[in-house]
Amino acid sequence: MSNRSVKRLFALSAVGFALALAGPATADEYAGYKPMFQPLPAIAPIPGDNSLTEAKAELGKMLFFEPRISASGVISCATCHNPALGYTDRIPRATGHMGQVGERNTPTVLNSGFFGAQFWDGRAPTLEAQALGPVEAGIEMAMPIDKAVARLKEFEIYHQMFAAAFDEKDPIKPANMAKALAAFQRTLVTPNSPFDRYLAGDDHAMSAQQKRGMKAFADRGCVGCHRGPALTDSNFYPIKVPGSTDLGRYLVTKKDADKHAFKTPTLRNVALTYPYFNNGNVDNLKDAIKVMGKEMLGLDLPAKEVADIEAFLHALTGEVPQFAVPSLP
Amino acid sequence: MSNRSVKRLFALSAVGFALALAGPATADEYAGYKPMFQPLPAIAPIPGDNSLTEAKAELGKMLFFEPRISASGVISCATCHNPALGYTDRIPRATGHMGQVGERNTPTVLNSGFFGAQFWDGRAPTLEAQALGPVEAGIEMAMPIDKAVARLKEFEIYHQMFAAAFDEKDPIKPANMAKALAAFQRTLVTPNSPFDRYLAGDDHAMSAQQKRGMKAFADRGCVGCHRGPALTDSNFYPIKVPGSTDLGRYLVTKKDADKHAFKTPTLRNVALTYPYFNNGNVDNLKDAIKVMGKEMLGLDLPAKEVADIEAFLHALTGEVPQFAVPSLP
Repeated sequence: MSNRSVKRLFALSAVGFALALAGPATADEYAGYKPMFQPLPAIAPIPGDNSLTEAKAELGKMLFFEPRISASGVISCATCHNPALGYTDRIPRATGHMGQVGERNTPTVLNSGFFGAQFWDGRAPTLEAQALGPVEAGIEMAMPIDKAVARLKEFEIYHQMFAAAFDEKDPIKPANMAKALAAFQRTLVTPNSPFDRYLAGDDHAMSAQQKRGMKAFADRGCVGCHRGPALTDSNFYPIKVPGSTDLGRYLVTKKDADKHAFKTPTLRNVALTYPYFNNGNVDNLKDAIKVMGKEMLGLDLPAKEVADIEAFLHALTGEVPQFAVPSLP
Repeated sequence: MSNRSVKRLFALSAVGFALALAGPATADEYAGYKPMFQPLPAIAPIPGDNSLTEAKAELGKMLFFEPRISASGVISCATCHNPALGYTDRIPRATGHMGQVGERNTPTVLNSGFFGAQFWDGRAPTLEAQALGPVEAGIEMAMPIDKAVARLKEFEIYHQMFAAAFDEKDPIKPANMAKALAAFQRTLVTPNSPFDRYLAGDDHAMSAQQKRGMKAFADRGCVGCHRGPALTDSNFYPIKVPGSTDLGRYLVTKKDADKHAFKTPTLRNVALTYPYFNNGNVDNLKDAIKVMGKEMLGLDLPAKEVADIEAFLHALTGEVPQFAVPSLP
C-alpha cells in the first residue's frame, strides 16, 4: 500500500468524523464511518483478456470440481476450497496428495476476484496465474499439467466445453484451464451481507454492537490494510502469529523486509473461514482479533472492544453462491 | 435369490413372449418384455423405525458432506461418493485416508435405498447398518465413531439439527448419525430414465437399438439377477473378473460356496458408474458386458448383441438429484 493511499484513507476518516460529529442529526451516529468502507460490487474486476462468459465460467466450474486432474484421482480444487465450508477447509493447514500436510492455511476463494495478489505470499498476481499452482504442487494435487491436459482430452465433453469457451484451435491447454478456473472463481461473490445492506442505507442491517465494532475497527486503524471491497489491500506485512516460522513473502522477493510477511487476508465471510492466519493456528475470531491487536498495534485490546469487533466481523458474512455440483463426464 | 423367484421370472418371461407374439397388434414389438421389468418407484422403501422426515434427510445431507468426521478432516462420504461423478469416484479402487487404496471399487449410493444388501459383500443388510462403516474404516475416513460424535457435538447447529430430527434426549449418537445418513441416501433416487419412460408407456423413449438390447438382456437371462426396480436382486454370485483375487462374500459367511461371490450391482445409471466390477478393473460398458457373457453364460456374446445391450444400459441413466452443497458450521 502506498503512503498516499494511507493518507487518503485517514483523510476520509477525518471527514467521517466531521460528518458524524457536526453533520445533520441522524438516527445513526456511526453513519460518518461509511465513507471509509466500500460495498462489495456485484461483479469482480474482469481482466481485458479473459472475458467472463457463461460458457467459460461453466467450464471453470467443472474443472474446479474435477478430481481427475489430480494424481490420486480424488482431489479437486473443491476438496480444500470446499463449498460446504466457505470455500476453504476449516483445518489449520491444507491436506493434499497422500495426506501430506502443507505449511499454510487454505485461503477462501470467495471474492478472490477482488484480490490484487493471490496466495499468502502473493507469488501470483492474478487468478489466472494462481489457478494451476495447486494442480501441480506435490503436496496438493500432484499432477504435472501436461498429464492433466491429457486426462481432460480423454473426455468428449471437455473438447466441446473448451471449444465453446475459447474460439481457437486445440483449446484444451493449460492457459485456457487457468482462464476458465479464474472466470468461475470471479463468480464466487458473496453479496448482501448485513454490512453491505448497512452501507446501502439500511440503518437496521447491523446491530448497535456491530456498529460499535465498525467504529473500533476504523478508529484502531484496522481499515488501513483491511480496506476496499474485499477488506484487503492485497499488500504484505510482517506478522508472527503463534507457532509460525514461515518466511512468507521473503521466499518470493528475497528481501529482508518481507521476512514473515503475508498478504492481508480478506475479511469478507471471515466468520466462515476459520481457523485463522497463515498457519491456521488460531481457531476463533476472538483470539484472532487479540492477536492482531498485539501484532499490529502492540497492545491488548479491551475485551469489550474485541467483542464489538467480533460482532462487526460477523456482519461481513454474505450470501454464498448456491448451485448444484456439476455432473462430470 | 430363491429358485421360486427365478421360476416366477421365467414364467413372466413366457407370458411376455406370448403377449408379444399373439397379443393385439402394437407399434412396439418389444412391449411383451415390459412385464419382466419394474419401473423405479418415486420413493425408496422406508424402514418402519426410521421415518424419512425432511429434518432427518437434511441432517443426513450435512453429515454426508461433513469432512470433520474423518481423521484427516478432509474426507467425507461425498469424497468417494462424489455427486459430480454419479455418487461414486470413477477410479478403480477407493482411495481414502492418507491416500491408501482399498481392494474394492466404490459403489454408487444412487438408488441404494432399493438394495436388499449393502457393500459388495453384503456385510450390512441395510443403509443404517452400512452408514458408519466407512467412517471408521482405517483406509477410508479412519475416524473412531466416538470421536466423530464428539466432533459433531462441538457445533451448536448439530445439536439443533439432531434435536429437530430425533425426539429424544442426547440425540447426537452413532445410531442417529446412521439413521440420518440412511434417510438422506434414500432420497438419492434417479427418476425419468428413458427406460422408465418406456415402461410408463412412451414407445419412443427408447431407440430401436435400446429395445433390441432390452430383448437380448432378457433373452440371455441377465434379468434373472439384474431385476427389480434397481435391476439388482441384492444376491451374491461367484465371479472372477480380470485381476481379482478378492474372496468377497466368503469373508462374511466363511462358506466355500461364497468364495469370490459379490453382490449383483445395480444397473441403474450404470453408464455413469464406471469403472466396473468389484475391483474396478474394467473401464467401459462394452468390455463389462463381454466379461459378463463369459463369466455368467460361458460364451462370447456376438458384437452386435453387446452393442445393443450397451445401448439399453445407457437408457437406464436417470435424473441425478440436483441440490446445492449444504453449508456446514
